[in-house]
Amino acid sequence: MKTNKKLLIEQNTGKKYLVKELTEDYHTSFGIISSKDLKGKSTKIKSSTGKNFLLLDATFPDLWEQFQRGPQIMIQKDIGLVIAKTGINKDSEIVDAGGGSGSLCLSLANICKKITIYETNPEHHKVVQKNIALCNFSNVNLKQDDIYRGIKEKELDLITLDLPEPWHVTKHAEKALKEGGYVVIYLPNLTQVQKFLASLKGTSIKALETIELLERKWAINEQIMRPEFQMLGHTGFMTFCRKM
Amino acid sequence: MKTNKKLLIEQNTGKKYLVKELTEDYHTSFGIISSKDLKGKSTKIKSSTGKNFLLLDATFPDLWEQFQRGPQIMIQKDIGLVIAKTGINKDSEIVDAGGGSGSLCLSLANICKKITIYETNPEHHKVVQKNIALCNFSNVNLKQDDIYRGIKEKELDLITLDLPEPWHVTKHAEKALKEGGYVVIYLPNLTQVQKFLASLKGTSIKALETIELLERKWAINEQIMRPEFQMLGHTGFMTFCRKM
Amino acid sequence: MKTNKKLLIEQNTGKKYLVKELTEDYHTSFGIISSKDLKGKSTKIKSSTGKNFLLLDATFPDLWEQFQRGPQIMIQKDIGLVIAKTGINKDSEIVDAGGGSGSLCLSLANICKKITIYETNPEHHKVVQKNIALCNFSNVNLKQDDIYRGIKEKELDLITLDLPEPWHVTKHAEKALKEGGYVVIYLPNLTQVQKFLASLKGTSIKALETIELLERKWAINEQIMRPEFQMLGHTGFMTFCRKM
Amino acid sequence: MKTNKKLLIEQNTGKKYLVKELTEDYHTSFGIISSKDLKGKSTKIKSSTGKNFLLLDATFPDLWEQFQRGPQIMIQKDIGLVIAKTGINKDSEIVDAGGGSGSLCLSLANICKKITIYETNPEHHKVVQKNIALCNFSNVNLKQDDIYRGIKEKELDLITLDLPEPWHVTKHAEKALKEGGYVVIYLPNLTQVQKFLASLKGTSIKALETIELLERKWAINEQIMRPEFQMLGHTGFMTFCRKM
Repeated sequence: MKTNKKLLIEQNTGKKYLVKELTEDYHTSFGIISSKDLKGKSTKIKSSTGKNFLLLDATFPDLWEQFQRGPQIMIQKDIGLVIAKTGINKDSEIVDAGGGSGSLCLSLANICKKITIYETNPEHHKVVQKNIALCNFSNVNLKQDDIYRGIKEKELDLITLDLPEPWHVTKHAEKALKEGGYVVIYLPNLTQVQKFLASLKGTSIKALETIELLERKWAINEQIMRPEFQMLGHTGFMTFCRKM
Repeated sequence: MKTNKKLLIEQNTGKKYLVKELTEDYHTSFGIISSKDLKGKSTKIKSSTGKNFLLLDATFPDLWEQFQRGPQIMIQKDIGLVIAKTGINKDSEIVDAGGGSGSLCLSLANICKKITIYETNPEHHKVVQKNIALCNFSNVNLKQDDIYRGIKEKELDLITLDLPEPWHVTKHAEKALKEGGYVVIYLPNLTQVQKFLASLKGTSIKALETIELLERKWAINEQIMRPEFQMLGHTGFMTFCRKM
Repeated sequence: MKTNKKLLIEQNTGKKYLVKELTEDYHTSFGIISSKDLKGKSTKIKSSTGKNFLLLDATFPDLWEQFQRGPQIMIQKDIGLVIAKTGINKDSEIVDAGGGSGSLCLSLANICKKITIYETNPEHHKVVQKNIALCNFSNVNLKQDDIYRGIKEKELDLITLDLPEPWHVTKHAEKALKEGGYVVIYLPNLTQVQKFLASLKGTSIKALETIELLERKWAINEQIMRPEFQMLGHTGFMTFCRKM
Repeated sequence: MKTNKKLLIEQNTGKKYLVKELTEDYHTSFGIISSKDLKGKSTKIKSSTGKNFLLLDATFPDLWEQFQRGPQIMIQKDIGLVIAKTGINKDSEIVDAGGGSGSLCLSLANICKKITIYETNPEHHKVVQKNIALCNFSNVNLKQDDIYRGIKEKELDLITLDLPEPWHVTKHAEKALKEGGYVVIYLPNLTQVQKFLASLKGTSIKALETIELLERKWAINEQIMRPEFQMLGHTGFMTFCRKM
């Protein structure tokens, strides 16, 4: 599941270029990089105008930064918590719905065996499709089905929902999950969390915990040592559940 | 990389048992579970005294909760950020040092191709060894070498350091990482972060950002909707770096 | 409004004693302090056994630390926000209800012209009475009336409510406040905040904002620079309202 | 210490006007308010064009919102903590330095007996002077002296410093404070806090605690219940000290 994309970094300015096609010369504002160099083994190369470039294998986060994005993309602190709390790995089978641009589902695809995405919104569908292509992932099944009407997959390890009304999915999730499988819902409002929790009554899906993460970035050098003045005050509440 | 462990949950009380050996009968305070049932396909079983149990495949987080622990274990919010920010997957090769009980390194092992652990402290060494055995991981190479003296592995995707003086590792990390590879350091004190950042000068390892995460758990039901009164005020500062 | 209490600090150990009665000798585990010294002008005195003591005028926070306390005392970060957001001063007239030990209302009394406390709970009543006596405040009127049944005071600058069901007070507050006067409610649960906000509909009391403060203490010396590991995860949500 | 200013609120739009001079007619975009009405007792008045206005006594926070401001004004969460932790009241004598627009020092002036402000920057000096005039405060003594060179006042209850290098003030503060008096420093960087704390060695000023407050505003109605997305990530670290 290597990305087969390259990252070019111009050494003087630090400017980055994501190269998607290695079989063609690549044009930058600092000169042309030859296809021969792009496919070669050397990480230190020169453009046609003599500028120094670093040539790296693009990592998944390099691609993630380039994703075409919708309005409310899930960010890495929240994606990470989903991965760490559910323990998904290369054997995991997952269903995801509502994630917009694919920020969460493609981060899961980078790790898991197979992920199926339910996305009815035609515009989001297109964006996710582009992002799957960018990642060159072969373990993603993108569907235009409505998850509020049912989940066809069975024996799932994890279902992730970034939808306004996840309570319509509770009964479907109960059938689709394996025993011990996880559901994670991601919601901006506590009123929605409350309504979702109420929908679990009488089902075999048990709420484990509702968590939010606050991310603080720091500015640090010899003189300065303080949190950044800009901070995201809120992303979403994550509710972790398990069929048991 | 299935865990081949089982999780037993007594249905009345919710009490959990991690079953490590399926070939023997398992004794609980609610009666005996037969080995035949442990190896069977049914998820709903009865003990010798007629109590109802749920039988699940143990997930990695189930094992993680059972890890024998040292004093300052890295928790899931921080582990998740490392995974999400570095994009590790089943192709990744990693070196980890200083992690005590193995909380971070085994979480990485659950996802990556191969991880080498440097651990000189004999007590921590034993604990990590036990935890590797519990997970049944075959991709972990546990060494008693001192990472302050060098890193033998090459072309690494990621180096994670949970050590008091990570500045002794900077030069070694520079040689061991592939171009574009990541170093993540985890430190309780900003004075340490400052000293580590100073050690990067003149090397090809560049600091990307220093982040801390605050985790807030919520108590929610029909009447109650508030953060938990107990909160962990601080775990560690995470500094993300990259060779480039 | 000087406190006319003294604070004794034993210089070797830093142990503090609050002296309420200056006309009698004061017994400490480091010897006796003579009444003559307690009433004298010198701040550096000796006990009968020759130990060095510092003798200070006790400040309001010195008394506050000694308050006999109920279960959920309002702490200084929240008290401070009430003072700063409402701008109370020596001309202000205030009604307070439900505050338990008197932490908020006596902090307001330290600044304002006159404060009336409604407290029906006999046990809290006794505690507040003791704390008023400790502070030697003459501008506090402690009543055993039920604020859910009405407020007799008029033209108030501020009403503070630390009660489980403040919505019973909305109509009374509307009558008792002067135009432009403030109501501040302090509640642990957002469900309560929501219910209180609903009670404002059709009244002349307008909600300005709902705020919570997170307090982080830092450990700092030459080597250490980190937040304290212990942190209070939640105290209460403060809703600021104004009659207008 | 009444503000003798009025706040006009147009009832349809909620637009606010601070009226500084009651002896003249006041012009708004919703018509003219007659001086007779401004000086009258009625709180519900009409403009020349028949629009309804509410007429309130302006509170200190009403003025505070109108202060002419410099770049980094101290906000109410931090001002409140200074007031609550030091217990200042109408008997307190205070020195303040470096506060720029006067946000903190005028908030203290609203409560205390007397405050002296050291401000060498001519531009800040002018701004503070304007803001004192707006508040009509007679207990503020604004000086153009440099506090790094000494403090003339004696027996102070509190010294507040919002300066880049407060360690130059330590020795002066020691002399100027009464026994038991407080120093509060407000600094953006922990490196500065560390340097200030080092300057206390060998003096009678003892550090009590270093605290920062995070303020979270909430959006709440029947459907919505979530923190605001915008949040101030950092204002300053407050270090509370006491002479003892």
